[in-house]
Amino acid sequence: MQTLNVNWQPDKTAATPIYQQITNYFQHQIARGDWPVGAKLPSQRKLAEAFGVNRSTLITALDELIAVGLITSNPGSGMVISGNHWSSLLAEHVNWSQYVKAGQFKPNSHALQKINQFETDAVIRLSTGEPAPEQFPRALFQKAFAHLGQNLTSLNYTEPAGILALRQQIAKHLVKVGIHTQPENILITSGSLQALQLVSMSLFPANATIYTEAPTYVKSLHVFQSAQTHLTGIPMDSQGLAYWQMTPPAKDEHAIIYSIPTFNNPTGIVMSAERRQQTLQYAQEHRLPILEDAAYQDVWFDQQPPQPLKALDTTGNVIYFGSISKSLAPGLRIGWTVAAKPVIDRLTDVRMQTDYGASSLSQLVLAEILADPEYETYQANFRKVLAKKAAAAQAILHRYWDDFATWQAPTGGFYLWVRLADAINIPKLFDLATARNVLFNPGSIYDFAPNQYVRLSFSYESSERFERGIQILTELIHANFAV
Amino acid sequence: MQTLNVNWQPDKTAATPIYQQITNYFQHQIARGDWPVGAKLPSQRKLAEAFGVNRSTLITALDELIAVGLITSNPGSGMVISGNHWSSLLAEHVNWSQYVKAGQFKPNSHALQKINQFETDAVIRLSTGEPAPEQFPRALFQKAFAHLGQNLTSLNYTEPAGILALRQQIAKHLVKVGIHTQPENILITSGSLQALQLVSMSLFPANATIYTEAPTYVKSLHVFQSAQTHLTGIPMDSQGLAYWQMTPPAKDEHAIIYSIPTFNNPTGIVMSAERRQQTLQYAQEHRLPILEDAAYQDVWFDQQPPQPLKALDTTGNVIYFGSISKSLAPGLRIGWTVAAKPVIDRLTDVRMQTDYGASSLSQLVLAEILADPEYETYQANFRKVLAKKAAAAQAILHRYWDDFATWQAPTGGFYLWVRLADAINIPKLFDLATARNVLFNPGSIYDFAPNQYVRLSFSYESSERFERGIQILTELIHANFAV
Ligand SMILES: Cc1ncc(COP(=O)(O)O)c(C=O)c1O
Ligand SMILES: Cc1ncc(COP(=O)(O)O)c(C=O)c1O
Repeated sequence: MQTLNVNWQPDKTAATPIYQQITNYFQHQIARGDWPVGAKLPSQRKLAEAFGVNRSTLITALDELIAVGLITSNPGSGMVISGNHWSSLLAEHVNWSQYVKAGQFKPNSHALQKINQFETDAVIRLSTGEPAPEQFPRALFQKAFAHLGQNLTSLNYTEPAGILALRQQIAKHLVKVGIHTQPENILITSGSLQALQLVSMSLFPANATIYTEAPTYVKSLHVFQSAQTHLTGIPMDSQGLAYWQMTPPAKDEHAIIYSIPTFNNPTGIVMSAERRQQTLQYAQEHRLPILEDAAYQDVWFDQQPPQPLKALDTTGNVIYFGSISKSLAPGLRIGWTVAAKPVIDRLTDVRMQTDYGASSLSQLVLAEILADPEYETYQANFRKVLAKKAAAAQAILHRYWDDFATWQAPTGGFYLWVRLADAINIPKLFDLATARNVLFNPGSIYDFAPNQYVRLSFSYESSERFERGIQILTELIHANFAV
Repeated sequence: MQTLNVNWQPDKTAATPIYQQITNYFQHQIARGDWPVGAKLPSQRKLAEAFGVNRSTLITALDELIAVGLITSNPGSGMVISGNHWSSLLAEHVNWSQYVKAGQFKPNSHALQKINQFETDAVIRLSTGEPAPEQFPRALFQKAFAHLGQNLTSLNYTEPAGILALRQQIAKHLVKVGIHTQPENILITSGSLQALQLVSMSLFPANATIYTEAPTYVKSLHVFQSAQTHLTGIPMDSQGLAYWQMTPPAKDEHAIIYSIPTFNNPTGIVMSAERRQQTLQYAQEHRLPILEDAAYQDVWFDQQPPQPLKALDTTGNVIYFGSISKSLAPGLRIGWTVAAKPVIDRLTDVRMQTDYGASSLSQLVLAEILADPEYETYQANFRKVLAKKAAAAQAILHRYWDDFATWQAPTGGFYLWVRLADAINIPKLFDLATARNVLFNPGSIYDFAPNQYVRLSFSYESSERFERGIQILTELIHANFAV
């Protein structure tokens, strides 16, 4: 086994952090083939000396190199070059700033990665934006499976825009919220997230400004932030987006509105009917096309929310995104985009090149379920239970948190958007809570600046487990912060 | 209703085609808000005069503007500005060259769009790369549905890399082809197409060269061509990729190999065991990471093909793409990527931001089916039928086409790669055939230069319908070309 000689030192006057100069150097040496796989590295002490850096800087660099697979560290035999050519490319791509530059993907943030991993384990998930397993309508699915089992003659690639029977059912379903459309104006996607992705890849002009509510769900994604666009937060009042605070684009600039007018994630705010009209008109006047994310459209408690922007749109200026994830089952991965025909055609075309369409199985099962008259009964019950859980969750918060927390009562959706007293350090609380197997979403994930909020989901966990989670958080808050 | 005044003329000395200058002008006027929705256009005659262009140029421009929805033409009332802000953005994005520049998506080619549309109709599809509906194992699916119906407790977002039970089944399945791997080295995607997409978005360095067999399936996609990379075709001989014809990348350049070593689509060529070893070694020496597309791995006729490159890969230099589309059901949209852990982690991360994972329903059903001992029986029978259909298809070609066509007998896969006599104009034959409801894929879709080949699928249609299709093509050939 060959041991490597190192005769290079980082440039301490350069803007690039030293640890990163070191990872770049490793990556470069391996990518060029100068450091072959299997070669042994000098000890940490010797390396730090050779580079003229302190141990902790070196270790930061080595950790990252281990994470991307360029080196492995074996107790006994020390560190060895293990990277193949992919890990070398990976190391290059891990560099965030490069991604942003290239309009490509940024790695998910640390907190989100942690949540995604944890969400599969047996922890109390006040973070999870999904329907509760208890509400899963197994009987509806069983019926659909049985029917499908009898009739299925193949499961081949589907029509590019999605199976017609499903698009017909969606069109019917949309009439209930005031949208009158045709199957040819509908594109079925793998969840509405994919639709956002498709729009951002194929319709966003470079350097466009995307105006959105602050805080907003999309801030927690990298979809819009990766496409050479500027995501700009606009405050809300109790009626929703304060549209007049936008700067209208100059004649040769482009801007787009992305809005969650109904049960905004994370705040739960519903844009009033009047504000909807005004926003539409403002958008029309200032050449601002609108993306309307209606993921929570069907999960109201007692009263149907105002009609979607799309229902009021006479010029095709609104692209509407619906989803079955919040009212039935996210695992189906089915969403629908409603737009003018040329827009649908274009998105369909790009979508075919992305993954050839959504699962036919999911599409067929959903078409069966939507056509089942019992779906209405399920929905009504689902909403009733959800409203009860929202009330129970708020009663629990009043019991434990009244001294240091405030929130607005939601009228639909899955979340409580809770402001905590300034004394509570939320990133610290997050770490303490995950160590105790309780997950919540720090509000800063959704915002354009750090804030004092947490997002608590009352939908996924039972009220008993919600209370247990709050008890643990309460303990942690009292033990660690001066409230 | 306002009628527009036009005082602008295209620059006849500019490089941009005149019709495109006109569409750009319209798009610009509408995007800036200068031409409001509802405004009436002057007549075609007046417009042509005002622009100083001939009618046919004008009509080309108007057709494109109608296609993207910027204007509508109503008999009686003439042409009206109908575009909203989205259609205006669309018009901008329809410009191919801009896409390529931005590393974004190019519209699907005309022939492919046509095929995609037609594939949903009642035509003879010698183009379709799918298993025949007759071979669909309904009983296997019914069993899986019944079992699932009893056990399903929810359908929520899945583990980021895919449901563990499925990854375990895939790992077991892969042992049969010589790949020994762990669930944590596997990422489940929405078909293998999505995996190609993910890799190209998150691991391709800018300006990299992607070496691939010529002809190749990926040439028919825009995935790799959109990512600021250079797709470069390398010829094959009877043993597969002539790897020695590649130019090794210089020290500071990047290159990647994409190969379909087993039943190459479209040619059916299988890379020999020896060539696999040599290619791997060459790649290792010249710092070329490898993408191995194994979509047809399981669809051999009589004899299992040589082990995948991945089975021989000791350094993690190969990323392997498998799929259930060709051996069971493309409508499940399930593929699997096998790679070193850091690569899987990175792809998983990007994938979560793209669509939150593949349909849980598809994943669960496939896990059930792969675990069913009868899956083996199904597979064996599937292969036998496929081999028979391949033989029947060739007998048919011998009967009708021996005078003007040649091909190599395939040993697996779905396709005959048929060279037609030079006298046959393939684009013309394609148009004539679609008019007669027969679809085939022109070979040029897959190649780096025009060629005299067609790809005929013997998998999808029955041998009777295959023959009918060939009869119609034979008629067309005799009536139109001097063979
Ligand atoms: C506002 C909003 N939009 C879209 C989505 C994406 O949902 P899906 O891709 O499952 O349809 C979510 C999920 O959390 C959401 O909260
Ligand atoms: C070589 C090859 N790879 C990948 C695919 C994509 O298949 P899927 O996305 O259905 O797995 C195909 C489909 O035609 C193919 O021929």
